[in-house]
Amino acid sequence: MQTTFRAGILGSTGYTGATLTGILARHPNIEIAFLASQQYAGQKFSSIYSEYRGLVDIECSNVDDEAIVNLTKNDVDIVFFATPNGIAHKHIPNLYEKGIHSIDLSADYRFRDLSTYETWYGFKREDQAINDKAIYGLVEFKREQIKAIEGTAIVGNPGCYTTSAILALSPLLKNKKVAAGSIIVDGKSGISGAGRKAATNLLFSEINESCSPYNLAGKHRHGPELEMFFSQISGQEINLTFSPHLVPMSVGLLTTCYASLDSSETELRKLYEDTYANEEFVTVLEADLYPQTKWALGTNQAFIQVNYDERLKRAIITCAIDNLMKGAAGQAVQNMNLILGLDETTALK
Amino acid sequence: MQTTFRAGILGSTGYTGATLTGILARHPNIEIAFLASQQYAGQKFSSIYSEYRGLVDIECSNVDDEAIVNLTKNDVDIVFFATPNGIAHKHIPNLYEKGIHSIDLSADYRFRDLSTYETWYGFKREDQAINDKAIYGLVEFKREQIKAIEGTAIVGNPGCYTTSAILALSPLLKNKKVAAGSIIVDGKSGISGAGRKAATNLLFSEINESCSPYNLAGKHRHGPELEMFFSQISGQEINLTFSPHLVPMSVGLLTTCYASLDSSETELRKLYEDTYANEEFVTVLEADLYPQTKWALGTNQAFIQVNYDERLKRAIITCAIDNLMKGAAGQAVQNMNLILGLDETTALK
Amino acid sequence: MQTTFRAGILGSTGYTGATLTGILARHPNIEIAFLASQQYAGQKFSSIYSEYRGLVDIECSNVDDEAIVNLTKNDVDIVFFATPNGIAHKHIPNLYEKGIHSIDLSADYRFRDLSTYETWYGFKREDQAINDKAIYGLVEFKREQIKAIEGTAIVGNPGCYTTSAILALSPLLKNKKVAAGSIIVDGKSGISGAGRKAATNLLFSEINESCSPYNLAGKHRHGPELEMFFSQISGQEINLTFSPHLVPMSVGLLTTCYASLDSSETELRKLYEDTYANEEFVTVLEADLYPQTKWALGTNQAFIQVNYDERLKRAIITCAIDNLMKGAAGQAVQNMNLILGLDETTALK
Amino acid sequence: MQTTFRAGILGSTGYTGATLTGILARHPNIEIAFLASQQYAGQKFSSIYSEYRGLVDIECSNVDDEAIVNLTKNDVDIVFFATPNGIAHKHIPNLYEKGIHSIDLSADYRFRDLSTYETWYGFKREDQAINDKAIYGLVEFKREQIKAIEGTAIVGNPGCYTTSAILALSPLLKNKKVAAGSIIVDGKSGISGAGRKAATNLLFSEINESCSPYNLAGKHRHGPELEMFFSQISGQEINLTFSPHLVPMSVGLLTTCYASLDSSETELRKLYEDTYANEEFVTVLEADLYPQTKWALGTNQAFIQVNYDERLKRAIITCAIDNLMKGAAGQAVQNMNLILGLDETTALK
Repeated sequence: MQTTFRAGILGSTGYTGATLTGILARHPNIEIAFLASQQYAGQKFSSIYSEYRGLVDIECSNVDDEAIVNLTKNDVDIVFFATPNGIAHKHIPNLYEKGIHSIDLSADYRFRDLSTYETWYGFKREDQAINDKAIYGLVEFKREQIKAIEGTAIVGNPGCYTTSAILALSPLLKNKKVAAGSIIVDGKSGISGAGRKAATNLLFSEINESCSPYNLAGKHRHGPELEMFFSQISGQEINLTFSPHLVPMSVGLLTTCYASLDSSETELRKLYEDTYANEEFVTVLEADLYPQTKWALGTNQAFIQVNYDERLKRAIITCAIDNLMKGAAGQAVQNMNLILGLDETTALK
Repeated sequence: MQTTFRAGILGSTGYTGATLTGILARHPNIEIAFLASQQYAGQKFSSIYSEYRGLVDIECSNVDDEAIVNLTKNDVDIVFFATPNGIAHKHIPNLYEKGIHSIDLSADYRFRDLSTYETWYGFKREDQAINDKAIYGLVEFKREQIKAIEGTAIVGNPGCYTTSAILALSPLLKNKKVAAGSIIVDGKSGISGAGRKAATNLLFSEINESCSPYNLAGKHRHGPELEMFFSQISGQEINLTFSPHLVPMSVGLLTTCYASLDSSETELRKLYEDTYANEEFVTVLEADLYPQTKWALGTNQAFIQVNYDERLKRAIITCAIDNLMKGAAGQAVQNMNLILGLDETTALK
Repeated sequence: MQTTFRAGILGSTGYTGATLTGILARHPNIEIAFLASQQYAGQKFSSIYSEYRGLVDIECSNVDDEAIVNLTKNDVDIVFFATPNGIAHKHIPNLYEKGIHSIDLSADYRFRDLSTYETWYGFKREDQAINDKAIYGLVEFKREQIKAIEGTAIVGNPGCYTTSAILALSPLLKNKKVAAGSIIVDGKSGISGAGRKAATNLLFSEINESCSPYNLAGKHRHGPELEMFFSQISGQEINLTFSPHLVPMSVGLLTTCYASLDSSETELRKLYEDTYANEEFVTVLEADLYPQTKWALGTNQAFIQVNYDERLKRAIITCAIDNLMKGAAGQAVQNMNLILGLDETTALK
Repeated sequence: MQTTFRAGILGSTGYTGATLTGILARHPNIEIAFLASQQYAGQKFSSIYSEYRGLVDIECSNVDDEAIVNLTKNDVDIVFFATPNGIAHKHIPNLYEKGIHSIDLSADYRFRDLSTYETWYGFKREDQAINDKAIYGLVEFKREQIKAIEGTAIVGNPGCYTTSAILALSPLLKNKKVAAGSIIVDGKSGISGAGRKAATNLLFSEINESCSPYNLAGKHRHGPELEMFFSQISGQEINLTFSPHLVPMSVGLLTTCYASLDSSETELRKLYEDTYANEEFVTVLEADLYPQTKWALGTNQAFIQVNYDERLKRAIITCAIDNLMKGAAGQAVQNMNLILGLDETTALK
């Protein structure tokens, strides 16, 4: 049985790519085949992220279109795309043909309905067949499907807000009768979620000591992602309100999720405890202990609290994660471990 | 006409009291009669808050029960209580008798129904008559009542979350048919809102780089305060869900308020613009400009954005304030200016 | 006597320019003639800095070279340059000829020796005559010179680190025998000092939770500025070590200054108290009270502590300021007030 | 050969103790025998630090004086004291007698001259014999001594500022002729260095957005610790100026160290590269790359830059560490690994 695999990362020097690189560098079954970076090609990874000196001194390469086309299964077993939206889908069909697994941390393989890409992401897609092969990699609810993949895998790794909200609300949507239109996801994210791009509005002096909403009332792309997943899991069309906010911290993400239904705190807590009883990366907190995003920092863990407003018959579920870990790179490695037949928690504890 | 008034502050060295002291020290019509502080009695105010050196070098006094009892209208025209809950109501009846105005920044005069104090604040009240004289000082909606006070005033100054949410939701509740039980107030506050007390959970290393909910599902005292006000202004009993969160910043408060109703963004925006057209301290932002709490820092200003989710027929109103200013001391001075017959904006622009 | 003056600001939308704009907008004797901004020409100032809505709604103009050439004394009494280094010196000679005062917040008029510009700033200067007319605007030590200007003024407004270190060390250098080569200025600055430019290394996620030196051992331009001033004030050539550091805060600057000399803490404290006895903007702190940068936030104040290490015969002088105020815009207005014959503290208290 | 050892921690719920607990919980050769905490006795460690749920669910015990007296080598192989100063020295002699190793993270065993404890720490010590058995555990310069211990070990683990400054300056002091009295250590520390105690001056709202010196001119206890070590290593009496500063970040520590000597940057860089060539935990940075404290976060690594001011013949050495790791708990584990005959880097990479 194969125990060492070669992984390549495209977009390795963004915050997500770098976090992924860090995990893979410490992964006992992984050998890094290449780290690609358009911006820093020719420079050592550890010269961009000095905290990795001695651990990841690999030189970043400019893996251009041609180079990707020429990759073979002799070079690499699995390729991660930590690239901007709209890039992965140009390369993954080719990798798939060669039997190279792909995990896409961008949005290119999250949706089953191709029109979503055009409506929300601004690029046309017509590759329905290959898109149908992709699995939405929210492990806790797709584990069996991911393990059942025969041959080559394509995983669309979920977004950060969506991961948190899916863990928060899926037990309800799967098992309970939630009032139509009652779902609200109020998200609070650290700034690294906006990526490592030189933009005035992300400067320290702009962000520090301020809190602010953005893209309210159906203008954020994680809205349709949530609706797709929740419709699937509940077996009915779900529409919801998603409200993202920026909070002055580097890392961390909290969602406060509201849903109207007839239940009780006791009943709901039991449902969540049962749902996640065997999950290594989901902690359902005891009553009165509220999740703090810092608990999740640097880990793949989600912390969930379950509240129920008796008077208004409304569940309030809060979920804290590290947006770069469980919300991106950590979950990607969870998916990889499953695909490669490794213990799901390898390099993540 | 009297143009100089003497003001006394009890609890002057907490964050709210100190902010109030700073405004009053620069107020052209106010002379500070005394700054009381149990903790720092005998020390100069500016030795606790060095930023006020040269501006407020008054020595804090220990204005104990006896001293308050002995205050006369020759000593002071108006007394501010920036004290913990449960103290103001012991002294204000006496001040009222002597014709000394009171503004209470604690919760002692916010409620008309005395049982609320027992249920939510843990102390019994039986002074219905004097309590009935108090006005809830949310100026934008109580201005005429405050101006109409004849003789001595007692103002219950609103809480910080409540101020933000009332400004955000009152135009709807006063003018529109909001679906019963649909209101949710998701609040995000800077840490100064928790006060200046030596507590482990407020240490820099505990708060920094973390975001967290607390007192969810009807456990925070600003919930009933909101329900009281909204029931009053809408003429029907309002119950709502209030979810407070701590955000790692010193000052600033944002509420994201949800309410279901049949309307449109255009119609709602017009309603808000009309409602606040003549308000100096409320800014309704143009479309797509989201409020940032830092804009409000050090000011008495509220920044409101109006969104409407067409699909779900849900208004999403966001409102950013400085929790120590419009959310406490600034609004208290607004109230004082009205009571004393001064221009409402004096010392607040 | 003229009591209203028109001021124009070039570079009004950087952090320094915006702070300056805010002060001038509230200045009782100033009318803003124009706000120039290359980046935001055509947009309202308050659309860039929403905290100034209602206060500064002037549209930013693109005051290009031609427009500056055509300015006359009918348009404007004084022009501020909050522009990058190398721009002011192209325009100020022309303004000077027309009798328009200039205050340059960049480095173009800080040095008397023209070769410094070439060595340290990379542009050649040959305009010795006009450069000689400029005064280095460190008010506390140049007040008489500034007031004595007859006719048109050109002021080179000092740098932020230099302002702090000059206030910290000048009393020693003017009055005491400091050991040659013993001076070290260890500076700690908030991030706004680096300006409002879209750069990866100034992103929130890069700066937050980190402290770092930069440009050590004679590589920062405030080194020669300090040496010039200290040589002048002491009457001997001063060389020193200047070590700047970035600290994760938006605003604020502290210098910890070391100098070897034979003295005592008592003697030094008296020297500082005497030197600054009549200075409105310099506070010499009593023993054991250490300056905190937050005390200076939003003010033009400098807080100085005087320590002396008896064993090593070394003075340790610390000085905290707001880098955008006393370190830039506040001091510029102090200079303007003097030039225009106004009370030096107008709009700065 | 013994490969599993039992370790007990006194003071396990302070920041240093908790960091230590986290490392030991993941250490392959360590079994935690007990976690003592006065404040939280009877509570699970993971209920205080929720990030350790599932990893450290041990209940904190109240290991009082009697319990410590009764410990035997059957209970525990090594005891860590993460207690306030003045406690360890009451218990360690007893543990020593029983053959139980001790590592003291407080100051009780850092000094060889007992009078230092009285002068600087306020408690009298007369146990010269046992104190003489202790080794100052700055591993990089004491490794051979620590490995050579026969029998039972007592290690005085160095302070945080001292660790950084010793790594920064020892190569000079050991090998070069540094001018007498020329050494200055200007330290910048995150707030966790002040410990987890409920104190007003450590509140988020007090610390955030501010930078400040404290205990200047010979008033900080890490001054004599540095002098002791540097005198030892240089073979001459060293006196120096130490200036600590608080920086608004949770974790991280930087020292900027100055020393006058005749050398060159090239020569010094070579000296540092040679000194630390085989050190796993010390990185000498290439020219122009300045250390950032965040690189060291969560690691046992020190990042050093070497600068030399040619004009003033002054070396400027900067060193960034994580104050809780290399500055406390990480170094303690490094010491433990050596004492127990394990690979020095176990659980620290």
